[in-house]
Amino acid sequence: MADGQYVAGVDLGGTFIKFALLDSQGQVVVRDSVPTRAADGAEIVLERMAAGVRRLAATVGDSAIEAVGVGIPGLVAMETGVTIDLANFPGRWPGVQVASTLGVATGFPVHVINDARAFAVAEHGMGAAQEADVALCVTIGTGIGGGLVVHGQPVFGLGGAAGEIGHLIVREQGPRCSCGNRGCVEMLASGPAIVGEAVRRIAQGFTTDLRRRAGDDLRAVTPEMVTLAAAEGDSVAADVLQEAGYHLGIALAGAIALLAPRVIVIGGGVAQPGGIYWRSAEATARSHSFVTDISQIEFRPAMLGYDAGVIGAALWGRARHAQIAEDTARRSAAPASPA
Amino acid sequence: MADGQYVAGVDLGGTFIKFALLDSQGQVVVRDSVPTRAADGAEIVLERMAAGVRRLAATVGDSAIEAVGVGIPGLVAMETGVTIDLANFPGRWPGVQVASTLGVATGFPVHVINDARAFAVAEHGMGAAQEADVALCVTIGTGIGGGLVVHGQPVFGLGGAAGEIGHLIVREQGPRCSCGNRGCVEMLASGPAIVGEAVRRIAQGFTTDLRRRAGDDLRAVTPEMVTLAAAEGDSVAADVLQEAGYHLGIALAGAIALLAPRVIVIGGGVAQPGGIYWRSAEATARSHSFVTDISQIEFRPAMLGYDAGVIGAALWGRARHAQIAEDTARRSAAPASPA
Repeated sequence: MADGQYVAGVDLGGTFIKFALLDSQGQVVVRDSVPTRAADGAEIVLERMAAGVRRLAATVGDSAIEAVGVGIPGLVAMETGVTIDLANFPGRWPGVQVASTLGVATGFPVHVINDARAFAVAEHGMGAAQEADVALCVTIGTGIGGGLVVHGQPVFGLGGAAGEIGHLIVREQGPRCSCGNRGCVEMLASGPAIVGEAVRRIAQGFTTDLRRRAGDDLRAVTPEMVTLAAAEGDSVAADVLQEAGYHLGIALAGAIALLAPRVIVIGGGVAQPGGIYWRSAEATARSHSFVTDISQIEFRPAMLGYDAGVIGAALWGRARHAQIAEDTARRSAAPASPA
Repeated sequence: MADGQYVAGVDLGGTFIKFALLDSQGQVVVRDSVPTRAADGAEIVLERMAAGVRRLAATVGDSAIEAVGVGIPGLVAMETGVTIDLANFPGRWPGVQVASTLGVATGFPVHVINDARAFAVAEHGMGAAQEADVALCVTIGTGIGGGLVVHGQPVFGLGGAAGEIGHLIVREQGPRCSCGNRGCVEMLASGPAIVGEAVRRIAQGFTTDLRRRAGDDLRAVTPEMVTLAAAEGDSVAADVLQEAGYHLGIALAGAIALLAPRVIVIGGGVAQPGGIYWRSAEATARSHSFVTDISQIEFRPAMLGYDAGVIGAALWGRARHAQIAEDTARRSAAPASPA
């Protein structure tokens, strides 16, 4: 087998670190995951990531690995591979040298990317945004992240921060967000936002089956529980999802005004196609978009599901590695020239 | 002189139609303008536009004109050159065939573009957004329009509608916008929004010099008058500009979260660099942006001023014409192949 046919992806999540080995066609040939245990601190978590990469490499041999891509759940400098702020990690990981540490530990070139941008790279490369000139990819889970495709290519923007639709402000005096603003859509339409609003209504004595479903323990309420209760006719649960979807729809309408995308890809565990939340979000976005021909915009479910983050990280590792190789070749091929 | 060195630009405005002839370097060599008199109807206005193009062509000879670009103040289908809705024109111009009518009347290939996108094309091609990978161009006047640059190239999006930052919702239950939504930033930060708020405060008896400046005629209040009064110490006028700038800043913060642009170009008559409105907008955008490194974002005044629209229209006419010629050449050069 020729050298460098495979690329390894690592998706650092709050609960699990996922690993995948992709072949030259982008197909996943090996999957793996380990608990993150972020409380152990960055050094040990980085060792876990390195060990996982070495396990992947052992399946095909080191020389078959072209590069490693790592998805990071938060602010990270793409060029240097150093984290800036991971809001859901203990100590928030300021200045953790992910790329260089993993590079030294594994011997492979390592490139990092924000996890929501990785999701968009995956859906652009292998999923629901493949042929769109302009696409917006949104992933809804613990947070709301996103990534853009423009001119048929992923967009990274300053510091790789383009696509942060979760921090569009949709309610002027809304709840304080972990980012510092008030009323970010992430505070009103993410999984925890749905749970928070459901719990508030249970606590205020609304008539709902949610209390029983949670075994009378408000800490046990999950977005899935709210979704299931709503699907089974619980009007309080349905109302919570309707409102959360409305807020997402207002944010999507803003993104539509700015980007006029042909495709909006929605992924993550919270938004199920055809569910109340999805329908509320899509209907709100459509009924609040007047400056573009909304009838031509398609809302599509993400295609890569649970694997999107790790696939996108791997695809990014490969793309960035090829780009650097090309730039190097061009520089060494160019004749010395003044200035 | 070789044929086709010049391109003509037309900027259809609510008050004036501007014309410019650009040489091969993009320099304006002839300028012209006539009153629009939109009340005369689309047919007569199109005749005025055609006559202006013919006057430009007469200065260099028809064979020296490569193409014509036309900027349209509203929704227009770029591919077909047919208007959809010009909110500030009588009857709103549904379905006016601008490109084909002007093409027949002048004998030149005609390509149309929304006027705010033309502004962005001009600032990207010849102005303040020239070298940016990602830039947001915003023009503030009667409305708030905009255009995007991504991957160093202008973005048009579905139907050419990308960049409509004026229709980002910044106040959930804000005033109704001509687009149909409530609380669009255009309703809170445009020239008319500033005038409306100033007039409201005069009418409510706030202590301000604006009433005297307007000669006791509330219809005489202009954004320039409010700006001048504020600069000369009128605290009511200053407060109106501060608030309008705040709303623009919130919209800019939303666009920053989504796009992570390195450069924000602000133009149009209302926003003067260093003025209260500009400073309020910039400070608000900076203090509400947490998910990208705001210190690296530059706010720049537009460089092309009054000419931006007509230059951008002309540059678009040239770019689109070249693109079509290239596509045609590629198709005729390609060997017939099975689909």
